[in-house]
Formats: sequence, structure tokens, C-alpha cells
Amino acid sequence: MHFPDDKPLRLECGQDLAPFSIAYTTSGKLNADRSNAILICHALTGDQFVTSDHPLTGKPGWWLTLVGPGKAIDTDRYFVICPNILGSCMGSTGPASINPQTKEPYGLKFPMITIGDIVNAQVRLIDHLKIDQLFAVVGGSMGGMQVLQWASHFSNRVYAAVPIATTSRHSSQNIAFHEVGRQAVMADPKWHGGNYYETGEVPRNGLAVARMAAHITYLSEDALQEKFGRNLQNRTTRTFTFDADFQVESYLRHQGSTFVDRFDPNSYLYITRAMDYFDLASSHMGILSKAFQATTTRFCVVSFTSDWLYPTRESRDIVRALNAVAADVSFVEIDSNAGHDAFLLDEPEFFETIRGFINAAAQKRGLE
Amino acid sequence: MHFPDDKPLRLECGQDLAPFSIAYTTSGKLNADRSNAILICHALTGDQFVTSDHPLTGKPGWWLTLVGPGKAIDTDRYFVICPNILGSCMGSTGPASINPQTKEPYGLKFPMITIGDIVNAQVRLIDHLKIDQLFAVVGGSMGGMQVLQWASHFSNRVYAAVPIATTSRHSSQNIAFHEVGRQAVMADPKWHGGNYYETGEVPRNGLAVARMAAHITYLSEDALQEKFGRNLQNRTTRTFTFDADFQVESYLRHQGSTFVDRFDPNSYLYITRAMDYFDLASSHMGILSKAFQATTTRFCVVSFTSDWLYPTRESRDIVRALNAVAADVSFVEIDSNAGHDAFLLDEPEFFETIRGFINAAAQKRGLE
Repeated sequence: MHFPDDKPLRLECGQDLAPFSIAYTTSGKLNADRSNAILICHALTGDQFVTSDHPLTGKPGWWLTLVGPGKAIDTDRYFVICPNILGSCMGSTGPASINPQTKEPYGLKFPMITIGDIVNAQVRLIDHLKIDQLFAVVGGSMGGMQVLQWASHFSNRVYAAVPIATTSRHSSQNIAFHEVGRQAVMADPKWHGGNYYETGEVPRNGLAVARMAAHITYLSEDALQEKFGRNLQNRTTRTFTFDADFQVESYLRHQGSTFVDRFDPNSYLYITRAMDYFDLASSHMGILSKAFQATTTRFCVVSFTSDWLYPTRESRDIVRALNAVAADVSFVEIDSNAGHDAFLLDEPEFFETIRGFINAAAQKRGLE
Repeated sequence: MHFPDDKPLRLECGQDLAPFSIAYTTSGKLNADRSNAILICHALTGDQFVTSDHPLTGKPGWWLTLVGPGKAIDTDRYFVICPNILGSCMGSTGPASINPQTKEPYGLKFPMITIGDIVNAQVRLIDHLKIDQLFAVVGGSMGGMQVLQWASHFSNRVYAAVPIATTSRHSSQNIAFHEVGRQAVMADPKWHGGNYYETGEVPRNGLAVARMAAHITYLSEDALQEKFGRNLQNRTTRTFTFDADFQVESYLRHQGSTFVDRFDPNSYLYITRAMDYFDLASSHMGILSKAFQATTTRFCVVSFTSDWLYPTRESRDIVRALNAVAADVSFVEIDSNAGHDAFLLDEPEFFETIRGFINAAAQKRGLE
């Protein structure tokens, strides 16, 4: 579905974006008093196809492990909304969209967006759906940043918040990895200053390299070692060439080349920048707890032991800040060796954590 | 200095390399019985200019912290030799060298080389210098791999070995990071299948991206955070552009752009491949201790607490293997938050460790 909005969206950079459109999916049914809605926020390269097949790749929904009938986030009980974020490329307005002033794709004329802008656009969607208060906002990684932004800026509209494998701001190392990715895209001559839409040639190579580098950070060292080790790919000896001798090389190349079939390189630049800019404490003199002052939302913060992109200490910082303002918060660190991507994988302890929290919150909220 | 060798070097890939040449520097004086020579092995992007200014960058020697008159490796007492490795680009034969068969630069026709080949070429140099036994072989990172190779294959020619911040084989994650770097180089159209020497256009962008990605792995997360944090570069607010807003972005871009002025992209491909291929245990059914059987070399293995490229456990594996064959080995883990690059930095505890080991070994060896 599409929600087109003609009313300008005032962005953090000072510009107005108009018109804009948010593509989204829903599953389950909104109840009579519109109190059972759960907003799912997707990660950097995610999209709105949380439980349904991806229209380009044909792959099943990216969070079917957690969301669906009878799942921890039960679409038999809840109305699940998943919007494609502003700046992305699966139907919501982004750099590949037509700039109404030039009638051509925005490219780098698209204004820089922030997590705050992304959430403000989601607020418009929730208004449009006539939902006063979301029962829950749930997301992992960059999705978790949106959850934190919602809970910080729109606490009265969020009954329960579940930030998973996330951080309140990027470390220097996080920014560094993203900058490598951006430079890889921009180094590709086909990027063409962001105006590749007109040439028909996409900076595939650059984006693939960016994806490969990022992908390493999504997995733990142990997970890579267990999965691939030093195993050779379809051969018994080294070729003494630059072919993908090792399985891990072949795997990474595959990750890179399939990604470029479904993602817009400029969207990758804009969204990584939004993540790097995100810093919830910055407008509160660096004191994170102030970002949650007077919050009425209840929180379940989740981290994974082997996540080195957003390690558990980042979640602990969030929990500490919430404790400092006496917020209702539970914190679970899930034992997993899958790394950052654990939140997308089959992690029963994680599912039970979410199920328990959601069920308890639903009871408290008086949801059947 | 140059050591040209006309006698073919039989490589692990099966090919013969001839002629080949090793560029090297020396400092200090070889004593009368030629027993005070220390071989320094450099890392991936290192070179022979261990104590002297780099001819291209003008920067001072890369290991002046450790090597020089009165230093832990005292050039007043020892004759220090540092060869540029085979496959590199500072005077030793590598992919940028002229292929005698075609009279043009090798490019990708240069045979794939291994750490074993690199060391075999060094053995030729040591033969040429009429040194029967090196007093010590010392190196960090990929230099440490060469140290291990020397001690494993030429134990009788190595009195003491100091492998620093290294590993006996690359993990899946190590290979993955290197593969990203190689793909970044190869994705640059100016790479031109490795034949850029004739076009005069160097794949600078690709190599810069490779260097940026690698550089992140050389520093600890803490070191990046302390050095740069989320500090902005010469500005007080975000620009909402893709400029290098953050200091860490500016730093990485600088690392990338200065590197390409001094390094050959094909050398980067070949040497990273040699590192990925290195696996000391592989020819011993995976049993590392067998690689050191009957060794007479004494070892000092050094790791750094915050090194996540070759974490301490990799050094422990080496120590365990040496213990299993009752080798004379001491092991020191240096407390440092500088990450992998600590071995190149001002780390007094590290210097004292090396000084102590070298002095004691010299006494044992009967060196004045």
C-alpha cells in the first residue's frame, strides 16, 4: 500500500519535502478501538515485506521468524504495520524518486534525511491510519534506532517499545565502516555524482563492495569461522589465482552481487548517513537519560552476546539511561554466536523473550 | 641495496621465477663471525625502510621505535637486515616488475606467491650475505608469519624468533576483509585486469577503499573512539551532505589517498592473497606443533590485548604448539588499547619485552 502525503514534511536539515509517499504493508486486523497496532521498523537494507514475499527477489518475508500467525508477534492478535523508510527504494520517497521541481530523479538533490525525519514520516502514516497510540514499536539494528526515536519523541503514542541489537548513537568504528561503504559506491565511476539514473548504468561494483564490507560486520567472527572456516569452494587445492578459492570469498561475492539487484546505491548513501548522524543524547547535552524524561512507554531492550556491531554495552547504556528516569524497562542479553544478524535468525530464546514481553504488555494494556 | 639472483626460485605454485631481485637495507655492522645478524620482516604494506626515510613519502623509518642505536633492537650491537618482500613494490620483484618474456610489466602474469616463497627468497639473500645462522628473525603481523615460516622451515638458521601480533593462519573473517579489499581494487575500471601499467591510469580509488577498510581492522574500537569519537572535522554542526563531517571519515580518506601514492595495487592483491593462503599447520594434517618439531629456535611470542585482527588467542595457539614440542618459548601479552597497530607505536612495555628477550638470547649465544 501507499500513503501519499501532499503536506510538506519539515526535515531536520531545514528543507521541506513535498510531496512524499510512504509504502507499507499491514497484516492482521486493527481492532475496534484501534489499540492493537504494532509498528515494525526495518533495518538499513530492509523493507516493508516483513511477512510477505519480496517482489524483486521472490524471497519470503524477512521477519517471518518473529512475525506471523501464532508467532511471538502474533498477527492473529495484532495489526502489524511495516513502512518502507523515507530515503529507501521500495516505494517510499527517496533519492530515486522524481523530483517534482525537475521532473527527474532526485539523485544527490534529495535532501539529507535523519532518523528523526524517518520517524516523523511514520507518524504521518500512523495519523493517517487514525491510530492514536501504537501498542508497540519493534525493530532491530537501524529499526531499533527508530524505536528509540519514537519512544523519545512520541512516548505518549507508544505503549511498548522493543529496541533490538541497536544503539543510541554510532561509535567511531561504526561511522568508519559506513564511510568505507559510501566511498566504495562513490569511487565507482558509474555512480556519476549520483546521477546514474539517466545513464542506465548503475554503480553495481561499488555497491557490491560496500555490501561485502558491511556484511562482515553483521556476522560474528565465530559464526564466519564455523560456517566457512578456511574451507575451499568446490575444489580441493588452492588455484593460485584470484578466483574465489575460499568459501567465505564466494559467499561474500554472492552477498554483494545479489544486493545490487534490489537496492538503490544512493539510498544506501543516504540511509547510512542517517544512521551515522543519529545521536539521541546530542540534543540533551550528551545526557541520554534526558531523551527519555517523563516517558510513559514500557521497554524491552534486547542485545546479543556476539554482536560486535552494536555490542551489549550499547544496550546497557540505553537501559541505564532508562533506569535513571525510572522508566519501566526490562533488558535481556541473548546468548548467540550469530553476531548482529542474530535478530533475523532462528533464536528461540529471543522469540520467547519477545513473546513474553508482548503478552505481558498486552495484558496490562487490556488487549484480549 | 639490491640482491639480484639469476638462479630460478621454485615457487609453491610450481612455477619458476627468474630472474628475481630483492631490495634491502642494512644498519649496524656484521661482526667477524657473522653471528649478530637480525632479520626484520615487514608487514603487508611495509618495506625495507625500517630505520631510514622512505624515498617516496619522506617519512622516517617505520620501526624507529624499536630499531636503532640504543633501542631494543640495538644497531650498535646487531647487524639489522630488512628486505622488501617478494611481490611488493619497493624494489623487490613483483607484479609491477618487467616480465623478461614479454618485456612488459607482469601484471596478473606474475605468479601467485606465498609466505613460503617470500621466505625462500630471503634465504637466498641471507646465503648471499654469507650468514649461516641469523641471530634473530623479528616481525609483526605479516612479518610475524614470515618469522614463523623461518622458524618452522629453517630452524637451524634462526637462533631466536620473535613473532609479534600474528597468526599461524587466517581466520574466515581475516580472509573476508582481504577479499573486500581485493574486490575494491578489481572493481575499479582503471585496474583494467591488472594491466594498468600501460594505460598510465592507476586504480587509485579502488586501492584507497581497500586501504580504508583494512585500516579499520588495524585499530581497536576503543582507539578509534578515543582518537575521534563522534567529533566533527573543522565544523561545529553537521553539513547534511556527504562531505567528511566526522573526523574519522576525514582520517580514513587521508589514509586511503596517501597509501595509493606509495603502493602498487597489484602488489596489494598478491600479498593479501599470500597472507590468506598462509597456513602453517596445513601440510601437517592441521597439527600446528608438527610444524615446529625438533625446532632448536628460542621464541618470544608477543600479542596485544586490543588486537582484534590477530587476537591473543591466535598467539596462544602458537605458544601451545611450541610447548607441545618442548620448544624454548616465552609469551607476553602486552596491555594496550591501540589495536593491531600497537606493534608500530610507542608501547614501552613492548619495547622492554623485546629488549629483555634479545639481550638474554645474545648472552646465551655468546654475543658481546
